[in-house]
Amino acid sequence: MMINLNADLGESFGPWQMGDDEALLPLIDSASIACGFHAGDPGVMRDTLRQALAAGVETGAHPAYPDLQGFGRRTMRFELHEVEALVIYQLGALSAFAAAEGGTLTHVKPHGALSNQACADIALATAVARAIRAVDPALILLAPATSLLADAGRDEGLPVALEVFADRRYLGNGRLQPRSEHGAVIHDPEDCIRHVESMLDAGGLVSHDGQRIPSPIHSVCVHGDGASAVATAAQLRRRLIDRGHRLVGLRALVES
Amino acid sequence: MMINLNADLGESFGPWQMGDDEALLPLIDSASIACGFHAGDPGVMRDTLRQALAAGVETGAHPAYPDLQGFGRRTMRFELHEVEALVIYQLGALSAFAAAEGGTLTHVKPHGALSNQACADIALATAVARAIRAVDPALILLAPATSLLADAGRDEGLPVALEVFADRRYLGNGRLQPRSEHGAVIHDPEDCIRHVESMLDAGGLVSHDGQRIPSPIHSVCVHGDGASAVATAAQLRRRLIDRGHRLVGLRALVES
Amino acid sequence: MMINLNADLGESFGPWQMGDDEALLPLIDSASIACGFHAGDPGVMRDTLRQALAAGVETGAHPAYPDLQGFGRRTMRFELHEVEALVIYQLGALSAFAAAEGGTLTHVKPHGALSNQACADIALATAVARAIRAVDPALILLAPATSLLADAGRDEGLPVALEVFADRRYLGNGRLQPRSEHGAVIHDPEDCIRHVESMLDAGGLVSHDGQRIPSPIHSVCVHGDGASAVATAAQLRRRLIDRGHRLVGLRALVES
Amino acid sequence: MMINLNADLGESFGPWQMGDDEALLPLIDSASIACGFHAGDPGVMRDTLRQALAAGVETGAHPAYPDLQGFGRRTMRFELHEVEALVIYQLGALSAFAAAEGGTLTHVKPHGALSNQACADIALATAVARAIRAVDPALILLAPATSLLADAGRDEGLPVALEVFADRRYLGNGRLQPRSEHGAVIHDPEDCIRHVESMLDAGGLVSHDGQRIPSPIHSVCVHGDGASAVATAAQLRRRLIDRGHRLVGLRALVES
Repeated sequence: MMINLNADLGESFGPWQMGDDEALLPLIDSASIACGFHAGDPGVMRDTLRQALAAGVETGAHPAYPDLQGFGRRTMRFELHEVEALVIYQLGALSAFAAAEGGTLTHVKPHGALSNQACADIALATAVARAIRAVDPALILLAPATSLLADAGRDEGLPVALEVFADRRYLGNGRLQPRSEHGAVIHDPEDCIRHVESMLDAGGLVSHDGQRIPSPIHSVCVHGDGASAVATAAQLRRRLIDRGHRLVGLRALVES
Repeated sequence: MMINLNADLGESFGPWQMGDDEALLPLIDSASIACGFHAGDPGVMRDTLRQALAAGVETGAHPAYPDLQGFGRRTMRFELHEVEALVIYQLGALSAFAAAEGGTLTHVKPHGALSNQACADIALATAVARAIRAVDPALILLAPATSLLADAGRDEGLPVALEVFADRRYLGNGRLQPRSEHGAVIHDPEDCIRHVESMLDAGGLVSHDGQRIPSPIHSVCVHGDGASAVATAAQLRRRLIDRGHRLVGLRALVES
Repeated sequence: MMINLNADLGESFGPWQMGDDEALLPLIDSASIACGFHAGDPGVMRDTLRQALAAGVETGAHPAYPDLQGFGRRTMRFELHEVEALVIYQLGALSAFAAAEGGTLTHVKPHGALSNQACADIALATAVARAIRAVDPALILLAPATSLLADAGRDEGLPVALEVFADRRYLGNGRLQPRSEHGAVIHDPEDCIRHVESMLDAGGLVSHDGQRIPSPIHSVCVHGDGASAVATAAQLRRRLIDRGHRLVGLRALVES
Repeated sequence: MMINLNADLGESFGPWQMGDDEALLPLIDSASIACGFHAGDPGVMRDTLRQALAAGVETGAHPAYPDLQGFGRRTMRFELHEVEALVIYQLGALSAFAAAEGGTLTHVKPHGALSNQACADIALATAVARAIRAVDPALILLAPATSLLADAGRDEGLPVALEVFADRRYLGNGRLQPRSEHGAVIHDPEDCIRHVESMLDAGGLVSHDGQRIPSPIHSVCVHGDGASAVATAAQLRRRLIDRGHRLVGLRALVES
């Protein structure tokens, strides 16, 4: 009954704040930290890593397409060798901050359009997985449950942890409903919790029209940039404990 | 009589080429590779590292201010913690490519305005040195001979290698004559070689007006982006061997 | 007794919000709109222009150094021809949105470090003024009272409006106290209003240590990114009216 | 028998050169100038405009996706209002340099992936055309012959000039063969000229497999970044004159 709660942190940039990382950190087990391509900057990255380490939260890299203005959410087409290179670059940059702060990275979780496209494109997914393996094959790939990205990670020999999103609806094929569609993003914390519980009860994804796609669920993601992220994380954590789950890091999960 | 020949490589960006790295690699012992802030991009970084490893050339990071358009040569003022963070970021990014290609980085050499300002500002120099030490205290700081940057490296406990520039004139205080001044950049290969020999003979820097500033000289830099870089490196290498020098990597030098 | 109230708007970027432009617009006469170099992006620029035109607020360009991460506040050194070019570029970009929305730009106000450096460096100030004149000599230069930037504008034949800052303390030489110094930024709305009134009463700047530097005052700036910007603007507007001032656009002021 | 020869200029960036604009300018009638998003920077833009005006060459804007590293050739997906805004931004920036140099822009020609996608997507094409019209409805849209981009320009009421590419092969549907495919780019100047003559003789596009798609042809494009661009332009210009064509600006063509 082990489970992990993760959030995306370090998504401020220069003078612009995003999310409330300080409030989220005590409520999560794993933090995926922006690496400067869709959000974050060297200073934000270092501060976020320091805070996460101080909070005893496991850290990972959250690499993305180079698209600050679009927050990494725009579909883009790169050559596969370019995708490999941009993942290695970002992973390395964050790793150096981990080293500088006396920590290590546990996982890698692609962000935004890079993740969405890799979930549905095995060649792209393989490029991401190969980049991670090239840097450190012990890094855990944190990938959406039922995705081709998860498949690629396993095929490349990476430890893989499977996540569901507390605040996002699914299509019948297991992909995320696009943000542009009505209802795709769940804002109410109680709705988020019901969504997570229905998936834990079902043992897999539950789509917006009630279809069930079986899958192990290792981790639940609460997006750090949502307005109700802190409330959702706090209530979800309590509910998971009440249900008898033990909240752990990803390392403990994939090694169990 | 050991000495090192170094050049700055990987300074192409996207569709734009700079320098002739392929021709330079067989002629040098150490390559300082741009990290994407003043030049280079993830693809260029990976290719350059791969080529340098294949050529048996030691590699290091060439971090800079974030200033692609100005090629990292514009004076900028950052907070010291920002400088630390941007050096860590770039060093980490390049390190990951080294890891991915089965190599390791040997040294760090700041680029352009970051280097120039750090040579004359002990607080800035210390920020750079602390950033390197935070990532890996075994990394060699490749710094201009007689500079405060070299002092800061030693004070922070880093191994330090001292370089002179084959193609740049010096002021009486040991700083580089600004590029904007007439004669500051030496273009003729034979003039470059005479300049280097005069410094090796003098056992230190020799300024444009004939002053001598004593210093050990571990390495000679040929800028990779100059039009005559390849010719200069080829002739200089031959001349150094003819003078009885043994051309070695920086690791061998600082451990001797 | 005409006076103008201005604020810096359009300083959001991509997913990141800054300030509350909607609340500020009914409270000001002139908006200086970021042009994408220190803040703003094409979408933000268009939206801000549209809102300002709808609110009947005069608009101007707020050009800056290319430094999103540092919000244009980092000291940088460009060649004078580079400064001219970057001002022309930004001014043109914003002008096109004004044309697209059926409006025109009234003024130009340099931002951050570009403004601070130009206030103390007549060559830089002249480069800024020449850039504006090259695009449209009828554009008003909105410059800090007593600055070399204002002098350069007049020397180049531009109409010049002089502003004081409601929320910033002055040094004895008329320059802004650096943000890094304690007390340099005034946060309390009532303190801001007292600061403005003391300057209007004195007929010039009043420094933090009580020195008076005489100058006409055409406009008062409330920084749009401050937490209490809206409260300050609202109270200041009321107070100015109560004092018998007539609040007008910059065009009316410089033509009077 | 009027025809126009156009090339893409101003595609250098910071320290990196591309193409030989100086040699091309006497050989062409219209220059499409990069606006800083895929290439060019404020200094390059100003210099290119100045040189083009001095050479008596008509100038236009060459807007692109924000993708310096990918030279604007990467497929990206923007919201339509974002595309409008980025075209307006770039068009405005270049217009200000034209104004500063005493000239005016004659046309707009989208670059790279923006052009390719707009040629096959009427909604995207309409967004581009609306952006141009919003800034100045007298601007000529220089669009590939037989493209949806050309249709959108006409539908929005813009004057439209139709171009063929001297150095690119066509598919049977009139689209450009992707650069990634063998033979898509024609390198030999004589082959380029034969390609152009075959299309002029056929009165329309001629695809790589010999299909003919009828269309008026107002202009021939020689890409400025190709290695043989200067040779191709010189020979092509001579051949067109020998064939009895009169080489003119786009303004003369669309008004005839």
